[in-house]
Amino acid sequence: MTAPVPAARLRKFTADAFRAVGMPDADAALVAELMTEADVWGSESHGVFRLPHYIRRIRAGGVNLKPKIRVAEERPATALVDGDNAMGHLVMRFATRLAIEKARGTGVAWVGARMSNHAGPASLYARMPAAEGMVGMYFCVGNANHLAPWGGLDMLLSTNPIAFAVPGLEEPAVVLDMATTVSSFGKIKVYAQQGKAMPVGWVIERDGRPLTDAKRAAEGILLPLGGMEAGYKGYGLALVLGLLAGSLNNAAMGSEVVNFTEDDVSVTNTGHTIVAVDPAAFGDPTGFRRRVDRVVRELHASDRMPGVERILMPGERSHEKRKARAESGIPMSAPLRASLDKLAGELKIAALG
Amino acid sequence: MTAPVPAARLRKFTADAFRAVGMPDADAALVAELMTEADVWGSESHGVFRLPHYIRRIRAGGVNLKPKIRVAEERPATALVDGDNAMGHLVMRFATRLAIEKARGTGVAWVGARMSNHAGPASLYARMPAAEGMVGMYFCVGNANHLAPWGGLDMLLSTNPIAFAVPGLEEPAVVLDMATTVSSFGKIKVYAQQGKAMPVGWVIERDGRPLTDAKRAAEGILLPLGGMEAGYKGYGLALVLGLLAGSLNNAAMGSEVVNFTEDDVSVTNTGHTIVAVDPAAFGDPTGFRRRVDRVVRELHASDRMPGVERILMPGERSHEKRKARAESGIPMSAPLRASLDKLAGELKIAALG
Repeated sequence: MTAPVPAARLRKFTADAFRAVGMPDADAALVAELMTEADVWGSESHGVFRLPHYIRRIRAGGVNLKPKIRVAEERPATALVDGDNAMGHLVMRFATRLAIEKARGTGVAWVGARMSNHAGPASLYARMPAAEGMVGMYFCVGNANHLAPWGGLDMLLSTNPIAFAVPGLEEPAVVLDMATTVSSFGKIKVYAQQGKAMPVGWVIERDGRPLTDAKRAAEGILLPLGGMEAGYKGYGLALVLGLLAGSLNNAAMGSEVVNFTEDDVSVTNTGHTIVAVDPAAFGDPTGFRRRVDRVVRELHASDRMPGVERILMPGERSHEKRKARAESGIPMSAPLRASLDKLAGELKIAALG
Repeated sequence: MTAPVPAARLRKFTADAFRAVGMPDADAALVAELMTEADVWGSESHGVFRLPHYIRRIRAGGVNLKPKIRVAEERPATALVDGDNAMGHLVMRFATRLAIEKARGTGVAWVGARMSNHAGPASLYARMPAAEGMVGMYFCVGNANHLAPWGGLDMLLSTNPIAFAVPGLEEPAVVLDMATTVSSFGKIKVYAQQGKAMPVGWVIERDGRPLTDAKRAAEGILLPLGGMEAGYKGYGLALVLGLLAGSLNNAAMGSEVVNFTEDDVSVTNTGHTIVAVDPAAFGDPTGFRRRVDRVVRELHASDRMPGVERILMPGERSHEKRKARAESGIPMSAPLRASLDKLAGELKIAALG
């Protein structure tokens, strides 16, 4: 690892990079804020790690830098947002704010997005309603197909992730952020960059044998959550979430999904969905948050299996990383730092330093 | 297996049983209809198989036979239903009809229920919106804690299932119904009744060794979806769904969950949630259903791994069972038939014959 980078420095560097390729100031600042936020929360594989890739796509013309993000369909508690091929972060920030606003009036809101792009980690958007005392749920169609249907060989599904954020009162929010595969492809990309082998059980060859070379992962089939034994459940989740975030929003799904790792130009028409639920619609919201605290504390206090030091809530390590990184900066692997230095040279912007 | 029983016969038998213990006619008919429906769809472990248990609880006074099911909290797109300790089927039928009606106006509806009881298979309720062209999503807190937090030993979580139903146009709905454990406890109960051993990977002893004796499953810890390798994901799902169906609805969660297999009297305060989404709120609903068909057909047509005969959609086998069982009746294992014959004798009602 190289010296940690203060979040403010990383944010400025990221915004500089986007401005250098023509993104308007306000948008560059917003995307940089959200990407840095991902790193601060510990979603390394979905934060600034993606910057060189995003910049490459923008320079190739694959992202609309002057988008008109608009509401294409609307009901009291729903909306379909058309992202006009903008950066996904801008589309989903827009959609999530709309969902929060609607849920205040109707109790729940379900906002879909189409014509969007990769937007970083799922938890980034699920956390936004939670920050205002609401429950957040987010899911999307991933940006490359790495799954086959259960028992099949054709790559027709992505690792379609889902995230939930449930606010406590004194305890931090419970935040689950998971790909519907054993491992996310983002995590595999980090393994590849760091030259690490994947554990058996993440990816199989087309003949069913384990594939552990992370650099060759895209040639294999990612195992859906449940693995060889119960992977039909992860397959079912990936499919259903794809039908809801993709097909329902008239976004890409199945064979329509563009592999954005290999193709920098084609419009991805990425689909996402954000749901916000206002606990005040179900009774005293403070009472609910206290009940969440109680459950968290019960689980924390559970007897443990031999060798287990502590019981963790989903999102608990992220919460600790956020605290540590706000103080001492974001740790960065040597390959990531090198890729950002190279980018700075190409774009003629100040390096991270 | 004994001779298959026509659905109409099973429905009448089930209604007779409920009437014999004092349930009003209309309620008995409705619960019998929904329980038989579960068997017709192939959810054997959550249908009439549960009748002796339900009857035992009713006779012990654990279920309110004259409930006032009412809306306790309401917003335009949400409601909290208080089930007044009624049979869960009655509560969830009420809640689901309310969700469908609300979603027609607001685009989406999220209806929670508290003070309910076991309601049969999750898919039963997710299918109701789908039958009217909507997307259905259902989840609940299970009726006994068989999970510990990841790395823990205290039984604080249930197998909290989730179901989705997504309607196609010409293709049958895609219906996923899954416990957040490797196996549902309902399936394990069927194994126990039939004297079958469980596969390794479903349940572990408290020291981590595999437990395969289905009759002893309640002494062990069910492995969350993902198993030994990625079970923290299934644990996260079970927890988050429990917080939403339990804590949000002010229903039982964590240590409050009553083990209804062992305790016939205590009020279970079971929590459920049903979500209905109207595709018409996102554009042309027929277009959406056509897109679902396209994805289903793409997956069906995928190349297959050696030895795999066909690619299945979630819910496809249920759809086939429904067709077959509507024609030739519901197959029944000898132990199940014997338990229903015994019940008929106890209640002095006509046996299945």
